Amino acid sequence: MDSIIMYVPIIMALIGLAFMAVKRSWVLNQNAGDGKMKEISDYIYEGALAFLKAEYKLLTFFVIAASIALAAVSFIVPTTHILIVVAFVFGAFFSALAGNMGMKIATKTNVRTTQAARTSLPQALKVSFGGGTVMGLGVAGLAVLGLTSFFILLFQYFMNGTWTSTEDMTIVLETLAGFSLGAESIALFARVGGGIYTKAADVGADLVGKVEAGIPEDDPRNPATIADNVGDNVGDVAGMGADLFGSYVATVLAAMVLGNYVIKDMGGALDDNFGGIGPILLPMAIAGFGILFSIIGTMLVKIKSNDAKEKQVQGALNVGNWVSIGLTLISCFVLVKYLLPETMQMEFFGEGLKDISSMRVFYATVIGLTVGGVISSITEYYTGLGTKPVLAIVQKSSTGAGTNVIAGLATGMISTFPTVLIFAAAIWSSYALAGFYGVALAASAMMATTAMQLAIDAFGPIADNAGGIAEMSEQDPIVRERTDILDSVGNTTAATGKGFAIASAALTSLALFAAYVTFTGIDGINIFKAPVLAMLFVGGMVPVVFSALAMNSVGKAAMDMVYEVRRQFKEIPGIMEGTAKPDYAKCVDISTKAALREMMLPGVLTIGFPIAIVLLGKLVYNEDNQLIAEMLGGYMAGVTVSGVLWAIFQNNAGGAWDNAKKSFEAGVEINGEMTYKGSDAHKAAITGDTVGDPFKDTSGPSMNILIKLTCLIGLVIAPILGGHAIPQKGDKKEVKVEMKVQNSEKAEAIVTYTIVVDGVKKSHEKVFEGTKAEVKAQLDAFEKNTLNSANENQKIVIEKIDINK
Amino acid sequence: MDSIIMYVPIIMALIGLAFMAVKRSWVLNQNAGDGKMKEISDYIYEGALAFLKAEYKLLTFFVIAASIALAAVSFIVPTTHILIVVAFVFGAFFSALAGNMGMKIATKTNVRTTQAARTSLPQALKVSFGGGTVMGLGVAGLAVLGLTSFFILLFQYFMNGTWTSTEDMTIVLETLAGFSLGAESIALFARVGGGIYTKAADVGADLVGKVEAGIPEDDPRNPATIADNVGDNVGDVAGMGADLFGSYVATVLAAMVLGNYVIKDMGGALDDNFGGIGPILLPMAIAGFGILFSIIGTMLVKIKSNDAKEKQVQGALNVGNWVSIGLTLISCFVLVKYLLPETMQMEFFGEGLKDISSMRVFYATVIGLTVGGVISSITEYYTGLGTKPVLAIVQKSSTGAGTNVIAGLATGMISTFPTVLIFAAAIWSSYALAGFYGVALAASAMMATTAMQLAIDAFGPIADNAGGIAEMSEQDPIVRERTDILDSVGNTTAATGKGFAIASAALTSLALFAAYVTFTGIDGINIFKAPVLAMLFVGGMVPVVFSALAMNSVGKAAMDMVYEVRRQFKEIPGIMEGTAKPDYAKCVDISTKAALREMMLPGVLTIGFPIAIVLLGKLVYNEDNQLIAEMLGGYMAGVTVSGVLWAIFQNNAGGAWDNAKKSFEAGVEINGEMTYKGSDAHKAAITGDTVGDPFKDTSGPSMNILIKLTCLIGLVIAPILGGHAIPQKGDKKEVKVEMKVQNSEKAEAIVTYTIVVDGVKKSHEKVFEGTKAEVKAQLDAFEKNTLNSANENQKIVIEKIDINK
Repeated sequence: MDSIIMYVPIIMALIGLAFMAVKRSWVLNQNAGDGKMKEISDYIYEGALAFLKAEYKLLTFFVIAASIALAAVSFIVPTTHILIVVAFVFGAFFSALAGNMGMKIATKTNVRTTQAARTSLPQALKVSFGGGTVMGLGVAGLAVLGLTSFFILLFQYFMNGTWTSTEDMTIVLETLAGFSLGAESIALFARVGGGIYTKAADVGADLVGKVEAGIPEDDPRNPATIADNVGDNVGDVAGMGADLFGSYVATVLAAMVLGNYVIKDMGGALDDNFGGIGPILLPMAIAGFGILFSIIGTMLVKIKSNDAKEKQVQGALNVGNWVSIGLTLISCFVLVKYLLPETMQMEFFGEGLKDISSMRVFYATVIGLTVGGVISSITEYYTGLGTKPVLAIVQKSSTGAGTNVIAGLATGMISTFPTVLIFAAAIWSSYALAGFYGVALAASAMMATTAMQLAIDAFGPIADNAGGIAEMSEQDPIVRERTDILDSVGNTTAATGKGFAIASAALTSLALFAAYVTFTGIDGINIFKAPVLAMLFVGGMVPVVFSALAMNSVGKAAMDMVYEVRRQFKEIPGIMEGTAKPDYAKCVDISTKAALREMMLPGVLTIGFPIAIVLLGKLVYNEDNQLIAEMLGGYMAGVTVSGVLWAIFQNNAGGAWDNAKKSFEAGVEINGEMTYKGSDAHKAAITGDTVGDPFKDTSGPSMNILIKLTCLIGLVIAPILGGHAIPQKGDKKEVKVEMKVQNSEKAEAIVTYTIVVDGVKKSHEKVFEGTKAEVKAQLDAFEKNTLNSANENQKIVIEKIDINK
Repeated sequence: MDSIIMYVPIIMALIGLAFMAVKRSWVLNQNAGDGKMKEISDYIYEGALAFLKAEYKLLTFFVIAASIALAAVSFIVPTTHILIVVAFVFGAFFSALAGNMGMKIATKTNVRTTQAARTSLPQALKVSFGGGTVMGLGVAGLAVLGLTSFFILLFQYFMNGTWTSTEDMTIVLETLAGFSLGAESIALFARVGGGIYTKAADVGADLVGKVEAGIPEDDPRNPATIADNVGDNVGDVAGMGADLFGSYVATVLAAMVLGNYVIKDMGGALDDNFGGIGPILLPMAIAGFGILFSIIGTMLVKIKSNDAKEKQVQGALNVGNWVSIGLTLISCFVLVKYLLPETMQMEFFGEGLKDISSMRVFYATVIGLTVGGVISSITEYYTGLGTKPVLAIVQKSSTGAGTNVIAGLATGMISTFPTVLIFAAAIWSSYALAGFYGVALAASAMMATTAMQLAIDAFGPIADNAGGIAEMSEQDPIVRERTDILDSVGNTTAATGKGFAIASAALTSLALFAAYVTFTGIDGINIFKAPVLAMLFVGGMVPVVFSALAMNSVGKAAMDMVYEVRRQFKEIPGIMEGTAKPDYAKCVDISTKAALREMMLPGVLTIGFPIAIVLLGKLVYNEDNQLIAEMLGGYMAGVTVSGVLWAIFQNNAGGAWDNAKKSFEAGVEINGEMTYKGSDAHKAAITGDTVGDPFKDTSGPSMNILIKLTCLIGLVIAPILGGHAIPQKGDKKEVKVEMKVQNSEKAEAIVTYTIVVDGVKKSHEKVFEGTKAEVKAQLDAFEKNTLNSANENQKIVIEKIDINK
């Protein structure tokens, strides 16, 4: 048995973390500048720490409360193991740790980038992208390390490290789902709370600072200015990081769950060189190699000329990105060939068992890698500077704020058209290729280069901050010019990164959804049952209400900030004269508390609804777990479909408004006239941008978490509902074997077996071919591994074995 | 046989139309005023006629094209009869006729209302509501008359007026679906085209008139002013009328389809006094009696005091409304008791046949009547003047247009919460009571008082126009005061009417959806099949894109109007001086053409997508009609769920913005200060209203048509996909009867029969009880009516009859 492959992802993760450590110390060893530069940077760093401290305090309470709830569930429900609590705590811890590392490095890199820009553009890119690389590798490394280690531990604990049965592996993976749930819960805090934080600080700082006190943006005299800068890191760095960390873990987990069911469809045991769990190891292996190729990709991101423009910088990023994607593609091919049986059997609804060659799984990964890129391009088309849709919004600004807002809304809405069609095509085709295992592997392949994607994403806000510091510390204009080039590229990567994040969240949710259905053992989700249809409606509504709550939260949290800034201006004399230092920490604290308070209601909505549906279902239908599972499934589908739509709509509308406003900075031609900043059209565009801000930075990105967390909660609840699918003591199994022997060279055995679980019969058929001796051997193995396999709690009584051999 | 009941709805419809004719001549005999009043009113009337003329021209082409397409389908598909084309043409014709009548009476009543307001408020109410009554009764009367007559004709044609089998009745109802499709197609033109028309004319008139030329609103010198006034009638009167006409017909049809399947579940034949089709007749009977009770309701709408205020007027409308609803409730009880067997058998998915008492069907109608009212109240809460959500938007206006827009969007989004929960509860509970037949009857009961609802709805824009005429013709201020009271009440009824329209569209779509599933004979719609899930996504996207297209269309159509008005000002000298008459008809024509042109793309989207899905499905899955039917079903569910959400969101956001702006007219307190028209906050509120205008008058209401038409197209396509469910020559039927005779007084026969259609077996069971002689008689009848019934094309070969009697 070549079970060493199980440890390969861990090795890759450790390599990634080691490379991260090297890169980190290199970045930290860069010159951090002097005087005012350093002072501002320190304030931001302290603010970030203050945010993290406050967040961790709340998180600790949350994790304890959730752990108690999970422990209670594991005591009541026999199929849920107490170890899920441990997995949950570690998932939360790893995700928080990754966020912590990312935030710290981002807030340390910004000033070093400014300093590097004083020497040359290539150096500035190297430093800022270096910071992004640390963030990306930290997230990906910790995710793979945590998930794989936990899998190995649980595999040892429940199955002694050897394959027994699909049912036992289900227990392993159900427990592992706790890790994913922990990670995604932290993402709720980071993404939703962070989204509220960043916009509240932004709006609060602007309202009192720019409007009331008449001081410029980023002025150190504004008590909220540090909170504002911290917010950029909280939202764009930590929020995005936690989001992708969650997607990454959930995708791999879902693919493992579906891999387990591939083994089940193949008769319950697999004769491969990897302990019979090749299909389960594949997604982890792809993730592991993805880290390696991301490292290679990041090393290729460099420019030589100091006179490079946006195009060259973007080109350097693209080279790195495409190389890592290309290498991942090759590794997918090799790993699929290596880890999967050449032909698998998979059960398709209504079509029965089908023979699926491993190449079809590879094609599914190709679809996944393609979809990520295509969705990013579509996002770029609808939101990029100078694109047709954005220019159309600019034109509409000339007739006022109303028409600008309508045009932005319409752009966001229309952008759902190509995006959803691509999704639908991806779901359909990857399913047609290799069932839901194909869908999950498409998602896994897409997420494999998460480290690279995050490096590119995080580089943007670092460059943005670097530009701010250059401005505030009154550097030579050339410095600002250089950081502006990086910032401009960063804006593009931010837009495409959002597209990638939605695509990953959508595919992850689908994979989780599929895992949920197999976990509960239901035959599908029939929306022609009225209770299921009703829940589809309710699920569709939740993302809409969630978005509205998030938007309103920004308003409320911003008002808290306004009151605090006004108080400081009044109570601390000398702030405006620059003789007294404002209480930055207090503003950071206000913003943090308001953000975390305001995310409670959306959070409760997310977590509460699935639980309420199960309780209501239990109340009405008592023991009809099948129907309750379908209701919850209907709800999950509603949340996913509606959530994906609202994410695309809000992100793209927000992005389009933002760049429509930015278009005025360089000047745009409206009705044949050049129009600039300060014009009426520009003012109209600012209104649109104000509407778009919470869309693109708060409610839109929150959708990712909402849909993933909903599906994850469903997955964790699944064992409660799916009890009937796991064989219990006293359940019956009927087996009938027909064997035809033509001659000693050619024999065939057809095994028909029915498993009766709680009165529900499921029939399976398996065919063995070969020489008579081979067939006999296969039959023996099959009998041992599948028919008789059962652990202590799940003894299966075999009533009748009639094997004519 | 008491088959006279079949003609009762026709009699009721004729009574309704007769009452309408009387009311119409009474309204037309009212004094139409003099001089300027009459002149303005004539222009509006002429404009309306011009619109109708242009619309009918296009409609004729559309109806011919669609008829050819339908005829082609009926030639290719053996289960679709050519008579569907006739039904389609008549459905379109009846709907257009109803719209024509409504538009004409509305544009004749407005000036008469102004004139009546010169004498007294009670008289003004009587006239304006009289016009509304004519509209309401015209729509309801024609709908019931057309549908019932066609049903009787088709019933005679296909079944010689006597029950044969569910399969034959399916042919009748499938053909009748053509009538509903015709009606809903016209609604597409009226609601979507009308919605674009009204806002394009409004915006176009304002942009050139108020902004560029500086002349007041409704100034006769503005060439677009008549188009603007015509638009009010096109959108609010004709659009709403066509919408409800379509809902009304579709709901009753869907309930009839499901009634047919109740009979099937009961063994294929019913021994009642109504030719065995009681469950099919029930929805028509409820609709018929609803007309009668609406007449009674309208007669109660009157006020006595000339000093009455909004409250009294609203009270008078409420009295009429509640009385008609109350009477409908009683009639539902009586009709259910009278027409339905005391106990029915209905098949529930996964639960098998259940005994359902007729009282449970009555409870379902109670739910329907309640839901209509509750949704209207929720709409009123989120959009009414002085309500908490609207006041919150007013407050947010003080910080600018951006925050006003965000607050309005958030209000619309949050309003989906209670609305969707009510929907979900209604679906679930009415299904739990009486299956999808219960859901369809809930919808039928809600729609029964359509005449009354429309009377209340149409009264609003009439009063609005009357006020405009009073202003333009410089009447005594008391006249305007009186029409203002009516107008203000009209604004409230407009909001609640929109709530009613969404609720009706949603329930109608669900009923159609259920009818679709039974028509295709599929076992449900399993969204765990990836192609079905993919279509759920695509379906969810369509309403979003449709809305965006409609919004953009308003912008484009408005620009057409702007160019035309500018041209007239330039090319026709003397307009501004009042010496030359502007070419009103040209503007009406421009607006009409632009509206009808712009609605093409959304229309194609609506009609094209279901067809494309079927074609694509056929291409990929060839003969797997079951899967293709599920894919189309998934698409329909996606459109319905997403469409309902976007309808609520857009209507309520638009309504809330509108009233937030109107709040400034009387003055509102913001941060302790009274704020009025012309303030910055008011300007911000105007921006919100500009965004909300297309939301609430164009894209929002269009959702109703989109979801209904999608489900109707599905229903018409169903026979193509459901061919396997209709018995064909050579199909087999197995029958087994067990009869236990205890003594001559007590015998029981259990008939178990299996129908094998295209290899798919479906088992049925029917129990007869009574004396031995009675049971024998029942068995004979059952054998004759159900087992041996088959028309020429669908001969069923009975392999084995083993009746031990």
